[in-house]
Amino acid sequence: MEIITSLQNAKVKQWVRYQMKKHRDQDGVFLAEGEHLVGEAQKAGILKEVMVADSLKTQLSVPVTQVTEEILKKISSTQSGASIIGLCEFPKKKNPGYNRWLICDDIQDPGNLGTIIRTALSFGFDAIALSSGCADVYNEKTLRSSQGAVFHLPVIRKNLMEVIFDLKKQGVKVLASTLQEATPLSKLSVDVPLAVILGNEGQGIHSELIDRSDFRVKIEMDGFESLNVAVAAGIFCYTWRK
Amino acid sequence: MEIITSLQNAKVKQWVRYQMKKHRDQDGVFLAEGEHLVGEAQKAGILKEVMVADSLKTQLSVPVTQVTEEILKKISSTQSGASIIGLCEFPKKKNPGYNRWLICDDIQDPGNLGTIIRTALSFGFDAIALSSGCADVYNEKTLRSSQGAVFHLPVIRKNLMEVIFDLKKQGVKVLASTLQEATPLSKLSVDVPLAVILGNEGQGIHSELIDRSDFRVKIEMDGFESLNVAVAAGIFCYTWRK
Repeated sequence: MEIITSLQNAKVKQWVRYQMKKHRDQDGVFLAEGEHLVGEAQKAGILKEVMVADSLKTQLSVPVTQVTEEILKKISSTQSGASIIGLCEFPKKKNPGYNRWLICDDIQDPGNLGTIIRTALSFGFDAIALSSGCADVYNEKTLRSSQGAVFHLPVIRKNLMEVIFDLKKQGVKVLASTLQEATPLSKLSVDVPLAVILGNEGQGIHSELIDRSDFRVKIEMDGFESLNVAVAAGIFCYTWRK
Repeated sequence: MEIITSLQNAKVKQWVRYQMKKHRDQDGVFLAEGEHLVGEAQKAGILKEVMVADSLKTQLSVPVTQVTEEILKKISSTQSGASIIGLCEFPKKKNPGYNRWLICDDIQDPGNLGTIIRTALSFGFDAIALSSGCADVYNEKTLRSSQGAVFHLPVIRKNLMEVIFDLKKQGVKVLASTLQEATPLSKLSVDVPLAVILGNEGQGIHSELIDRSDFRVKIEMDGFESLNVAVAAGIFCYTWRK
C-alpha cells in the first residue's frame, strides 16, 4: 500500500485539480467524498482508487493510498474534509428506456439538481436530460445530495430542443411544469411514456421549450404558491412512478 | 436618515450578534437578508428597520439606515453578503387550525427545514411542530430556503410527545412516515384532520413517536429507495393539500 504524507506529492496535486469541472472533464474522472458515496461508486463499478487517513477501516477491492488528514482536507471540497475520498471514472453511457424522463432547464443549484436525480432514480425514472446551464453533476454538492444516484441514472447533457425532438419521435409526451395556462396535475390524464420539463429556480422554463411541449401542467397550491423545484420534481415523479 | 460607516458602531455590533441563535432568542428578533425576504417580512408586519448600501432603491415604511457594503457583509451570514438586511421581530403566536399539521422530529439541515416550511404553507397546512433537535427557523439558511414562509406559518417548538397528545385530543389522526411495517401512501384511506411526522435525515423518527402514531405510511419507491425529507414532505403535503 502506498503512503503519502506530502501535500506536494504529484498525485495529491492531481486530485486537488479534480475539484474543478475543467480537469474532471479533461480526464473523465471525479472525486467521491465520504464512505457512503465511495461505497455507492464501488457498487456502480466506477471506483478506481481511494485515499484514506486510516487504511485499517477500509475493505475495498481497489488500490488504497494512506494519506494524512491534512491531505484529505486539501483534496476535499468541503470545509470539514472527508475520511475517505475515491477517484471514480464517469459512468458509462447506457441506452435508457423511454418511459419516464425528467428534462432540467438550467437548474443551477447543485443541491437541487442532486436531489432531483436521487428522486428520479428512486421512482424508477429512466433518464434525466440537462441543459448546458445546469449545475455539474460531478461537483461535490450535487454528488452529496444525489446520495450516489448519479452513478446509476443515465444523465444526458444536450441541447434540450434536440432532446425534446428525439423524445417525441419515440412517442414520448412532453409536459412543461409551469403556472401559466396550465392544467392542474390532478386533472391531467396523461400516462407514460412521458417526460417532464422542470425550469430554472428563478426564471422557470425557456418559452421555446414550453412551446414545444404537448401539455402544460401545474401543481395546485393554496395561497403562498411557492415550491422548490426538487419538491415539484418529487410530486411529478411520485405521480408517474414505476 | 441615519448613516453609519464604522464597523465599530454599537448598532452594527448588535446586529452582528443576531447571527447567533442565543442573541436572537434573547431579544426576540432576527435578520432577514435580501430584498425578497425583507419584502416578505414587511408584508407579514414584522419588519422593524433595515440597513441598506443604497438607500435610494428602498421604498419601505420602516426606519432606514444607510451603511457601507463592508458593514452589510459583516452583518450578513452569507459569504457574498446582501444589499439589504432587515431587523424583524419574531412573528406573533397565532392559534392555528387543526386540519393539516407537519411534525418534524430532529430535521437538522436548515435547507431541508426551510423547504419543508415553504411547502407546508404552499399546500395550505395549518402549522408545523418542531422538536428541540430541529434546526433554528431564524437562521439565514432556513429563512432563505423557506422563501419567507416562516413569517406566515405558525411554528410550534415543543416536546413532540406533548404535541401528539394535544393533537389526538383534538381528533387529529397522527401518521408516521417510515419504511418499516408501513402502508403504502396510495393505499392509505385517511383524510383530514391529520398530522404527518417526518424524521431526522439519517435516523428517521424516534420509535416512541412512531408508537404513538395512528398510522405508519411509506412513499412507494422503485429500487433506489432514497428520498430527501423535504421531497417526502412535498408528496405528503400535496396528497392532503387544502
